[in-house]
Amino acid sequence: SSATTPITATLFPGDGIGPEIAESVKQVFKAAEVPIEWEEHYVGTEIDPRTQSFLTWESLESVRQNRVGLKGPMATPIGKGHRSLNLTLRKELNLYANVRPCNSLPGYKTRYDDVNLITIRENTEGEYSGLEHQVVRGVVESLKIITRQASLRVAEYAFHYAKAHGRERVSAIHKANIMQKTDGLFLKCCREVAEKYPEITYEEVVIDNCCMMLVKNPAFFDVLVMPNLYGDIISDLCAGLVGGLGLTPSCNIGEGGIALAEAVHGSAPDIAGKNLANPTALLLSAVSMLRHLELNDKADKIQDAILNTIAGGKYRTADLGGTSSTTDFTKAICDHL
Amino acid sequence: SSATTPITATLFPGDGIGPEIAESVKQVFKAAEVPIEWEEHYVGTEIDPRTQSFLTWESLESVRQNRVGLKGPMATPIGKGHRSLNLTLRKELNLYANVRPCNSLPGYKTRYDDVNLITIRENTEGEYSGLEHQVVRGVVESLKIITRQASLRVAEYAFHYAKAHGRERVSAIHKANIMQKTDGLFLKCCREVAEKYPEITYEEVVIDNCCMMLVKNPAFFDVLVMPNLYGDIISDLCAGLVGGLGLTPSCNIGEGGIALAEAVHGSAPDIAGKNLANPTALLLSAVSMLRHLELNDKADKIQDAILNTIAGGKYRTADLGGTSSTTDFTKAICDHL
Ligand SMILES: CC(C)[C@H](C(=O)O)[C@@H](O)C(=O)O
Ligand SMILES: CC(C)[C@H](C(=O)O)[C@@H](O)C(=O)O
Repeated sequence: SSATTPITATLFPGDGIGPEIAESVKQVFKAAEVPIEWEEHYVGTEIDPRTQSFLTWESLESVRQNRVGLKGPMATPIGKGHRSLNLTLRKELNLYANVRPCNSLPGYKTRYDDVNLITIRENTEGEYSGLEHQVVRGVVESLKIITRQASLRVAEYAFHYAKAHGRERVSAIHKANIMQKTDGLFLKCCREVAEKYPEITYEEVVIDNCCMMLVKNPAFFDVLVMPNLYGDIISDLCAGLVGGLGLTPSCNIGEGGIALAEAVHGSAPDIAGKNLANPTALLLSAVSMLRHLELNDKADKIQDAILNTIAGGKYRTADLGGTSSTTDFTKAICDHL
Repeated sequence: SSATTPITATLFPGDGIGPEIAESVKQVFKAAEVPIEWEEHYVGTEIDPRTQSFLTWESLESVRQNRVGLKGPMATPIGKGHRSLNLTLRKELNLYANVRPCNSLPGYKTRYDDVNLITIRENTEGEYSGLEHQVVRGVVESLKIITRQASLRVAEYAFHYAKAHGRERVSAIHKANIMQKTDGLFLKCCREVAEKYPEITYEEVVIDNCCMMLVKNPAFFDVLVMPNLYGDIISDLCAGLVGGLGLTPSCNIGEGGIALAEAVHGSAPDIAGKNLANPTALLLSAVSMLRHLELNDKADKIQDAILNTIAGGKYRTADLGGTSSTTDFTKAICDHL
């Protein structure tokens, strides 16, 4: 992709603070002269029967066509008869891997200063099958589904990612001592893929032990790959180590190389429209998107500007203990470029 | 129970370092003049057909009869055709609630200094049903079972515990936004019980958010109650916050008021027999057992002696950065009594 032919990317600003933080990304991309043109789509106000959710078919088609997109927070309206917006996106776009780099931010102090890991979560099956029923009154069951196909696919992605990013170790997280068949199949697939990457160290860690090690010594870990629910839990735990979901990027990878980056924090309706939101998670997610597009120079430049602004300490939004507005913080990043 | 009529309690020293740390408990109980007589049982060397495991029927009968016991680490021998020792105990004795207090140890520094919470884990069903099968080649499923009976039972225990221990808040941990039927039923049961305890604040926290909050601000939590797997994960995470499984007690509660306290760390075969093991987790578990027996004076006295010894800093085992042997550390505790 050359600088003269812009890439079209879908943008879902999302709800609540979404439009403000999306605006921040647009400003920063403009200042950094990123060759991207945004195609904006909004969450609809009525259920689209083709998606069974408030997401329109056209917005999904836009991602399918562009193969790359960025998404702000989307609050699923409460009520029955429609699907969660996030789950609809994962399902309809077959976003099989959720990739979340998690790094300590220089100058932003938490209890941990040495976190540098990536969680890669299987994003389509497992405990999220949606298959549940009442067996008899007072007895209900949920099905956890693990398939060879989806497990191999996410394991392939994890090892490929590790190699491409110069990472040394992949840890598969599981509870196969209890769920021998489901998590056992997941591990079997990881082992098969591991054999094709002899340069990457492969290990298996039981989820309870993994969580204990993460809070004691997160520097132990490098790349972690795991089934859906464990990924949901561990990625949030890891975000907590470095400050929370407001500071960590996320990118979903789909079949055929689709990438939908997203801020995974909430839509914060209480501060929406007040120019108070912290755009960091969406900005860093946009950086992940650039890396996926192999626009690494732009990605590095923007990432440095974000990190330097936060490290500088002068411009910080309220959630980080500062008094800057969204626009001031954004301007400071642009000035760093 | 008066000091003149001793209570008989079952003792499973367990494997590896088990006998050494059990000896430590016996010494400390003797020094504190605890009115308990131990009835020792060992893990067998052959599978007992009545338990389908290396645990003998007689040892289970001993707990059933005494209604109270203490258990060291048990390493399940590898191989097929028998059940895990821990799971056999839970199943055969119907140990429905696993209670783990988690407190920062004064003088033993970790990244957290304000942890003071209790995790209460449903211990008999959920993801541990053991029901799994291959649907077709490459597609396997595990069943998560949630029942009204077991959910009410553990919720009752949690609120009863909270009230009896002067705790103010119970948080039910769940993923009912995804597993609406199973975790939904669990929450429904918690809500029903919560209504009977208007003096206790009740709240519901999604597991991913719970883990993030735990690493950011564990002081937020008080009593947590949850289905089996979440309890497995969160109790280990919490142990990690204060230093690990070597420092945290655990007690299993069964039908009819049975209590089986246990050290949940491993049997550490590498240091077994070398007088290097840290007996703290088993000692604190023994203290939980005393509290269950309402021998609170003895419990307080022993707990203070353990905590003061660790806080003193002079006598610490190798895992805590010291050079004391198991017997020196034990003697120091006895001297504090
Ligand atoms: C909102 C919820 C359905 C979602 C999930 O559980 O996957 C969220 O926690 C996430 O991690 O994206
Ligand atoms: C050993 C294993 C089966 C057990 C569990 O998963 O329950 C352990 O992790 C525990 O927490 O007691």
